[in-house]
Amino acid sequence: MNIKIIGTGSYIPSTIEKNEDFYNHEFLNADGSKINSPNEVIVDKFKAITGIEERRYIKPELLNSDIAFYAAEKAIADAKIDKETLDYIIVAHNYGDIKHNTEQSDTVPSIASRVKHLLQIKNPKCVGYDLLFGCPGWIEGVIQANAFIKSGLAKRCLVIGTETLSRVVDKHDRDSMIYSDGAGAVIIEETNDDSGIIAHESATYSLDEAHFIFFGETNNLDSTSQRRYIKMYGRKIYEFALTNVPLALKSCLEKSGYNINDVKKILIHQANEKMDEAIVKRFYKLHDMKMPEGIMPMSINTLGNSSVATVPTLYDLILKGKLKNQEINKGDVILFASVGAGMNINAIVYKQ
Amino acid sequence: MNIKIIGTGSYIPSTIEKNEDFYNHEFLNADGSKINSPNEVIVDKFKAITGIEERRYIKPELLNSDIAFYAAEKAIADAKIDKETLDYIIVAHNYGDIKHNTEQSDTVPSIASRVKHLLQIKNPKCVGYDLLFGCPGWIEGVIQANAFIKSGLAKRCLVIGTETLSRVVDKHDRDSMIYSDGAGAVIIEETNDDSGIIAHESATYSLDEAHFIFFGETNNLDSTSQRRYIKMYGRKIYEFALTNVPLALKSCLEKSGYNINDVKKILIHQANEKMDEAIVKRFYKLHDMKMPEGIMPMSINTLGNSSVATVPTLYDLILKGKLKNQEINKGDVILFASVGAGMNINAIVYKQ
Repeated sequence: MNIKIIGTGSYIPSTIEKNEDFYNHEFLNADGSKINSPNEVIVDKFKAITGIEERRYIKPELLNSDIAFYAAEKAIADAKIDKETLDYIIVAHNYGDIKHNTEQSDTVPSIASRVKHLLQIKNPKCVGYDLLFGCPGWIEGVIQANAFIKSGLAKRCLVIGTETLSRVVDKHDRDSMIYSDGAGAVIIEETNDDSGIIAHESATYSLDEAHFIFFGETNNLDSTSQRRYIKMYGRKIYEFALTNVPLALKSCLEKSGYNINDVKKILIHQANEKMDEAIVKRFYKLHDMKMPEGIMPMSINTLGNSSVATVPTLYDLILKGKLKNQEINKGDVILFASVGAGMNINAIVYKQ
Repeated sequence: MNIKIIGTGSYIPSTIEKNEDFYNHEFLNADGSKINSPNEVIVDKFKAITGIEERRYIKPELLNSDIAFYAAEKAIADAKIDKETLDYIIVAHNYGDIKHNTEQSDTVPSIASRVKHLLQIKNPKCVGYDLLFGCPGWIEGVIQANAFIKSGLAKRCLVIGTETLSRVVDKHDRDSMIYSDGAGAVIIEETNDDSGIIAHESATYSLDEAHFIFFGETNNLDSTSQRRYIKMYGRKIYEFALTNVPLALKSCLEKSGYNINDVKKILIHQANEKMDEAIVKRFYKLHDMKMPEGIMPMSINTLGNSSVATVPTLYDLILKGKLKNQEINKGDVILFASVGAGMNINAIVYKQ
């Protein structure tokens, strides 16, 4: 028995925040000291490393659960299924619903319950829950759906990755330029052919790495507010990811029985272009190969890092022919991969 | 193949908050109006309905993830296993870590990653994630662990229910007296005998019920703060639970193949004593029976409603001989059941 994605959808927020929009921010170091460069230089350097030119923010009146619903609606329509036949709604996110200009995360009821409510699904046997697993949450949701279907617990699942990082950014932190909002969703079910999920791999590194991505106060030490924001130790994450992600990809590919030459695309979490490239290059180096051109589709330049939403959004864009020079065809072997807060790493070998 | 609980642990916070400690609170109705009764009368009425005499709060320096860790440590010791052999750490909670005297929920990294860090587990293949499913989260975690083991994804899982509701209560709301803090944990693995999880049932009612339990502002309308707190429509929840939980229990018992007379104990989420009694009475009425005496162990009178923690804590207390006149013996058929935010309902028929 294999388990396959039969429909995809994504929601790309309408507000475009360009790099130039950060020119008037007062960026500070983590110790509160001023950065001795003009903002134009800071922004250019940022662009060179991350590849990000612009990112998307949701409108003030929207919530994380709203955009999850928009993506879910599209995936349901794309799969041409009756929404009442869903057995699970799995929503991967990290910060819940945060209203514009407020601080608190709202997670009760779960985002899954809110999405189910918005979808107006009546069937109580459709069980909705939220999954917190850092940026790799959506891939982990797919792995959980796979286990539920294999164990006989479910036949059809909706798996959503949704995040509004614009509501947890510290405007005094250069890293704030990385973060973006977005939602991606897929419908998963059993299939009789040889396509779908072939192998998967998950790991949690928390002995030394648990707090590489954390909730911390603003870099503006003049502030008396206790409010906390998404924070990270970028250099540590880079080294961690470069050491561990290529090995996880290799291990997952070995489990699948496919050869490195069979891999047509690697859809990796859009965290940072230079880091993603370094990871994929090292993955090929482990197989004594050079990274093939076009193997790693990127959306980060215009969509930024929208956490759990990057991989399902990227996949949806490619399938719908919306990513230039990129396509995935029936029978193609692709890799989904992610790394993020936890620190968690996961990967799936998938046959289209 | 059956899946069985091989170890339990719980953490009961040390600060006892008695009903008398609420005598000096200024209780208000949801519309901000004053309640025309002295607090002694309000508290007595509250006690008569909920059965709660006292509840537990964690100390200011502790977090939700700390008490989850304490419960987990005990479950691991009780199961006499090597912690490095765990494949999953599943943490059910609803509000993450909230520091004393602050408002924000901290969920990055996940509470599971924090617990794994505190347990000093090295094995990266031990995957930790958080599950948000309202009060029924811990039972749902057990159902997920069951699916993971059945599908071959895992052999051994740690499932924790942990919550610090004292950090989200509105002191102007009478319902604040219900809420408590606590953590319960179990170790689950495959077994060769006929004991363990026999049947289970889950449901999400979100069409009309999604916002019966929600995040709302204080009843004190003079407050200019945007801060939000746990809030509920008690009457609606009571009616909902009384209609749907007995039917879910009946359906789960039928799936299990056991007879109502086989049931030795019902461990139901400690939400409200009168409501729990009404649910279990109606469950027996559906079988033309009277509720047997002592069938429903209760801890709510001294421990309050600690959300996801109530059922695993109650189970641990009984197994350890710490609940007066209650025991569970080898071969006993018991029911775990819960209802809460979502609105979610679930149940497990379990053979000890």
